[in-house]
Parts: sequence; structure tokens; C-alpha cells
Amino acid sequence: MTSQPAAPVESLATGQRSLGDPDVRYPLWPPLTEGCPATSTDSVAYPVEVDYAYDKLPDDFFATATATPRPRGHERWAPLLPPLHAPGLAEGGTPLLPLADGVWIKDESRNPTWSHKDRLNRVTVSAAVGAGAAGVVVASSGNHGASAAAYAARAGLRCAVVTSAEVPPAVDAFLRAYGAAVLPVPIEQRWSLLRRIAERTGYHPVSNLTPAAHTGHGFGPEGYKTLAYEIFTELGTVPRAVYVPTGYGEMLFGTWKGFAELVRLGYADRVPRMYACEPAAGGPLAASVRAGALTQVPVGPTAAYAISCPVGGHRGVVALRESGGSALLVTDAEMTAARAELARNGIWAELSAAAGLAGLRQLSEDVRDRAGEGPVVCVSTSSGFKDQDLLSAGPSATVDPEDWDAVERRLRQA
Amino acid sequence: MTSQPAAPVESLATGQRSLGDPDVRYPLWPPLTEGCPATSTDSVAYPVEVDYAYDKLPDDFFATATATPRPRGHERWAPLLPPLHAPGLAEGGTPLLPLADGVWIKDESRNPTWSHKDRLNRVTVSAAVGAGAAGVVVASSGNHGASAAAYAARAGLRCAVVTSAEVPPAVDAFLRAYGAAVLPVPIEQRWSLLRRIAERTGYHPVSNLTPAAHTGHGFGPEGYKTLAYEIFTELGTVPRAVYVPTGYGEMLFGTWKGFAELVRLGYADRVPRMYACEPAAGGPLAASVRAGALTQVPVGPTAAYAISCPVGGHRGVVALRESGGSALLVTDAEMTAARAELARNGIWAELSAAAGLAGLRQLSEDVRDRAGEGPVVCVSTSSGFKDQDLLSAGPSATVDPEDWDAVERRLRQA
Repeated sequence: MTSQPAAPVESLATGQRSLGDPDVRYPLWPPLTEGCPATSTDSVAYPVEVDYAYDKLPDDFFATATATPRPRGHERWAPLLPPLHAPGLAEGGTPLLPLADGVWIKDESRNPTWSHKDRLNRVTVSAAVGAGAAGVVVASSGNHGASAAAYAARAGLRCAVVTSAEVPPAVDAFLRAYGAAVLPVPIEQRWSLLRRIAERTGYHPVSNLTPAAHTGHGFGPEGYKTLAYEIFTELGTVPRAVYVPTGYGEMLFGTWKGFAELVRLGYADRVPRMYACEPAAGGPLAASVRAGALTQVPVGPTAAYAISCPVGGHRGVVALRESGGSALLVTDAEMTAARAELARNGIWAELSAAAGLAGLRQLSEDVRDRAGEGPVVCVSTSSGFKDQDLLSAGPSATVDPEDWDAVERRLRQA
Repeated sequence: MTSQPAAPVESLATGQRSLGDPDVRYPLWPPLTEGCPATSTDSVAYPVEVDYAYDKLPDDFFATATATPRPRGHERWAPLLPPLHAPGLAEGGTPLLPLADGVWIKDESRNPTWSHKDRLNRVTVSAAVGAGAAGVVVASSGNHGASAAAYAARAGLRCAVVTSAEVPPAVDAFLRAYGAAVLPVPIEQRWSLLRRIAERTGYHPVSNLTPAAHTGHGFGPEGYKTLAYEIFTELGTVPRAVYVPTGYGEMLFGTWKGFAELVRLGYADRVPRMYACEPAAGGPLAASVRAGALTQVPVGPTAAYAISCPVGGHRGVVALRESGGSALLVTDAEMTAARAELARNGIWAELSAAAGLAGLRQLSEDVRDRAGEGPVVCVSTSSGFKDQDLLSAGPSATVDPEDWDAVERRLRQA
């Protein structure tokens, strides 16, 4: 009888390493949740990443990892992830869906809580379990919080989500569904309350704690590396470019790092160009690249609330620099058009989720071709259920079924 | 460069066969959308199913079908499905998530439109494309309609969804997202309008047309066979029982048929007991089994709108009879408890989706054990975003972040 999943493979994680100075190393435990204490200053927060004993990975690892239906989820990639102490929900393994002309959509709405955030939260909630915490605390107005709540529930941990009053109605219900404590507070007080809860209750913080720049949990972005592993094994090649909806840049960095590992391990000879797609209403990474230093930006109105951030982080800078990519600013109108293009292809995405395709469509053929040959991947992060404007159009008007002219008009309008 | 999915394998489908009399056969085209004309009467509508050249299936088909990351979706099982003329969205391939004690949840919210209905609609929209129709028309108050709209959009077909004014608000937005014409009409006029649209526009009907009993599209339930194939290849064995949320019984039948094919092909020596889990507020299949004939029932109030039906169909009777299973009636309270159990395990399900687990939890140990040894699977059909009571609790109350006592109370309440 097969009533439990196979025991997870051992993690090859060896310790933490500063992104501010690669010679600065820390043991794997405890996980650093506020970046690198040695290199960070009041104005620049450098995150840490996780290092692995890459030489111990079996030679045929990527050739055989997807050859059996089990294990699924992060277990499949366990050697290259931090230890998976929390039970999983078969995160990842999302499909690549073809559009025309060699463009592929990585549909992250197919995750356990219907967004990419599950890749991160499996890892950070595992860190909380490994650290012996009684719960996790997260600041989020959406997908991140719901995902943390789901993984915490499954692991038997408590979860507190510090959020704001602007949360869309369906997302508020979503956050509460897993039994989390939801705490809407004025947006400027979110980080201080998160820190206070972490300090007073011992709950493990799984989102950012530093106001100057985003660092977040050192283990979290490792979970996004699986995006690169999946894209590579499914396409059978490295794409020429990946377009990533970008807020704090954790997914951008994690995806790049996964490809960089494939190069390091000899499976690939290059990484794709990474394109960070930020809302034009803000765009801290674009501003940081322009300024040559981490830069805070004012954030104007945008419905792409999931990726609307005044600060970015050093991880995004690394991913763009090392991949030869760049930061693109996409308007709400461009994201709306990209969302409609996805819907015409049967994919209902959140507005923020369409930022990747919006970025691709913004570039001229000429610029796109400079990225070389091969397929292009746009990450679509989440489903249309999460949008703020979900209910703004009101219910569909009823129609008199006996009035064929009215029925026909309705058919033609669609 | 791998920029398009591999060409789909040929279908081995040979024709249509009556469920009223297995000797009554029809060619594969045109698809019969109103059941078997030869055996159906005014009081009993017998559906048709699809037959295959099983002897032409390669011997190692099930051993190798899941050994590569591509193709995904129905393409993987193409020989045993009707021809897949419509482009896919990587439907199916959903995970089995373990609860305690050998119980597995088949999480169908991981489908392209976040419900099991995608397995059916890939097949029925393919039939519409194969039949040369300009569009599809469907009667639905939720998942079925949205799924049909998504597949129609991807195939470049028009879609009309005849629905009712009782559609939950988020679901209404969902239906419109893919560009379908949404037509809310009084519920008793849904079927006549569907028929009129089909007759006057030539749109291919992909939901039921017969008032006496459910028959629906003859190809559709074939898409649910993939549930059985996936459960079998992932568990490595046939489960002792499968608990299925049941409205019209199409998924119940399709899942049973998939297992029956595994027996026929020599991969398995038995099928699991199939348990139909219907809302206690109605339960036409339970009534039909009791009466020994297809029976219409009055439907009382229930929030499990996705599976609340006054009529069932002959397919459900076949699945229960041939598998030694039975029909269970689950109350809204039992489904609410099962939904909460799923949420504690990190799975946020629609109320109707929790009917399968509610059915399992209703049975005593004694009864469950009579089903024999081995794992048990409960199908969870869809996500919590689809529920009617999604927004009924109102938004989360704000909390003063300076008032630690208030914060602590909120943490304890969760």
C-alpha cells in the first residue's frame, strides 16, 4: 500500500552566503530573515542566499528528475533546495502553454493556492518548522499571505497575516479560509507590526523586515529556482529570455539562480536574459538600475497591487546584471491588453500576472531578436480571481429568453 | 527549437455505443448530444459512450505515459480519448495530496480554470471543432460554463453561457473573463433557450438538452477517464474506493470507466468502489437507486449549487452498479465540516468540492473497511473562490497596531 509520499531526498544545502560579499558565509541555521548583518548598512540591505554541495548531485539528476509521476512538488528538486521540513502541497509543476511564435506562458495559477508564491512559502514555512517556531507572520495584501496561511495550516503552525484595508474582497476571504489571523492595519504600520509580532510571539517572519530595501527571508527565493528547472526540463533547452512580473524581485532572482545553477552543473551553456516587468506607476528596480544604487520611488495609482512596491532589492539587480537583461516599466493599459490576450488564449490572469507578457509585447521585434534564438517564456503569476476590479462591472444583466432579438444582440456583443 | 507541443497521438476512438443497449452503435461523427435516439423514451434518456480499438494500444502504454514531462494534458492519454481537435490548456495532471490514514485528495482545483470541468470541456470543444461548429453553447451556473468559455476562446470559437441570476458574483466575472456571451435567464427556461440557440446558430451544445434525465454530450465524460489513469499511475495501484461529488454523474461515470478500461487492458484486476456524494437537499441518483428507475426529486435549499440537480442520469446508475458502490447523501453541515478539514490541510475547496470527503467521513469504519484494503481517494472538484458565501462574512475588521492586547486577541481567535 502506498499511503504516504516517499521520504524526501536529503537537501544538499550547506550554509548561507551574503549577496553583498560572497566571502561572507553563515551556517544554514538559524535562517537569516533580515539579510546579511555584516554587509548591510542603514541605506543598503544585502540579502543572503543558500549554498549547496553541488558536487554531490548525481550526474543524471536533471535527466531523471521528471521521469516518474512521484515525487511531485519541491520534493522532486529537494537536493537543490533548503530542507523541506514542512509537508508540501505539490507546489510547482505548472504547465508551459504555447501562444503563437515561440512564446510560452508559465501558468503559475496552477499552484496549490493558485499563485507562484507557493514555491517560496513551502521553503519558508519549512524554515519555520526547522527553527521550531510556533507560527509564521507575513505582511501581504494577497497571494503571499494566503500561501503562507495554507502551508502553515498544513504544517500545524499558526499564521498571522498583517494586511491593509485595501485588500480585494475575494482575497480577504481567501486569506481567512485557511484559519490565519488577518490583521488589516494602515499600510505604513505593516512592517512595524510584523516585527513586533515576530519579537513578542516568536512567530517566524516570512516576509520583509527591512524598510530601506527588500531582503526578506534568505531561504524563500530558493523555491523559485524550480521555475528554471521546470522550464529547462520541459522545453529541453534554455529559453532566450524570461519575462517576470516583478515586485520585490525574489522570483526574478530565484529563476535566474536556477538557470545559473544549470550552467554551473554543466547542463546548459548560458542563462536566459531576465526581464523584470514592473508597473510604470512605480518601478524601484528600473530606478535602481538607472541610478546605479538601490533607490526608493514614489508609487502612483495602479491596479497591479501585487507588484506595486516603493522599494526593490539587491537580488533583482544581480539577476539583471548577470543575465544581460533589463527592467521594463509596463502601464496598466499595457497589462490590461496583455490580460485580454491571455484570456483569448484561455488563460484568465490577474492584472499583475500579465505584466510579463506586457513587457514582451512592449519591446520591438528588433530588441527581442537581440536576445538570440529560441523560445521565450513569460511567467503569469496568478488567477483573475485575485483582482481588485473583479466585481466592479456588476452582475450580468438578465435577458428575456423569449426575445430572440435580445438574445442575438447579446451573442454578437461577446 | 521546441516552440510547439508535439503533434497529438492519434485517437483510437471507433464509434459511439448506447448505454441503453450495448449492441446499438453509431459512427463517431456526428457526436450525439442528446443521448441514444434508438433506446431513449420520453421518460428515460440513455446516453451514448465512445468505443475504442483497445487492441491497438501499445502494451507499455500505461508504463510509459508519465515518463516524460511532455506531452501534458489530455495529449498524454490521446489514444483512449475522442479526437483532440481543440488546442489544450494542459488539463488534468492534478496532484494527489495525502491526508492521514491512507486518504488522498485529488485536487481538481489545479486545472486550467480551477475545476474538474476542464477534463470534459477539452473533449466537447474538440467535438465542436471537429463538427465544424462556429461556437459552443452551455447551460451552467459556474465551473462548466467558464471552462467551456476558456476552451472555446483558445480554439477561436464563440461561446454562449446560459445561466441564472443566482450565479455568485465572482463566478459571474469569471464567466465573462474569457469573452463568452453570458445570458442569465429564469432557471426553468435555461434548457429551452440553450436548445433554441443551438438550433438557430449552429453552436455545438456541450451540456444537457433533455429534461427527463441527464445525458449530455456523448464525448464529454470520456475526458474524466483521465482521473482514473492518473490515480492509477501515481498510486501504483487501484484504490479501494473513490468518493466523487456528484451532480449529473458524468465524472462518476467517466472515472469508473477509466478504471474499467484498466481492468479490460490487463493492468488491474478490479475497479474501486465508486461512491456518489450528492447533496442531501436533492439526490436524484440516490433516489433512482432506491426506486430502481431514474427518478426526479425536489431540490431543497443547499449552498452546494454546483451539484444540486433535480435529475441524475443513467451513467451514474451504471458506475454504482458495476463497481459495487453506492450513493451517499451529504448535508450542507457535513460538507462545511469537510471543507474545514481540507482547509486545515492547506486545501481551500468550494463547498460542493468537499462533498467527496464529507461522504467518506459519513461512513463508519466498519462500512469503509468492507471496501477492502488500500488507499482511498476523494475528488475535490474546485476552489473556494467559487462559493456563494465567499463575501458573506464581510471584510476583516481593522486592528489598531499600537494596541497589543487587541492584536493578541486577534492572534488567539484564529
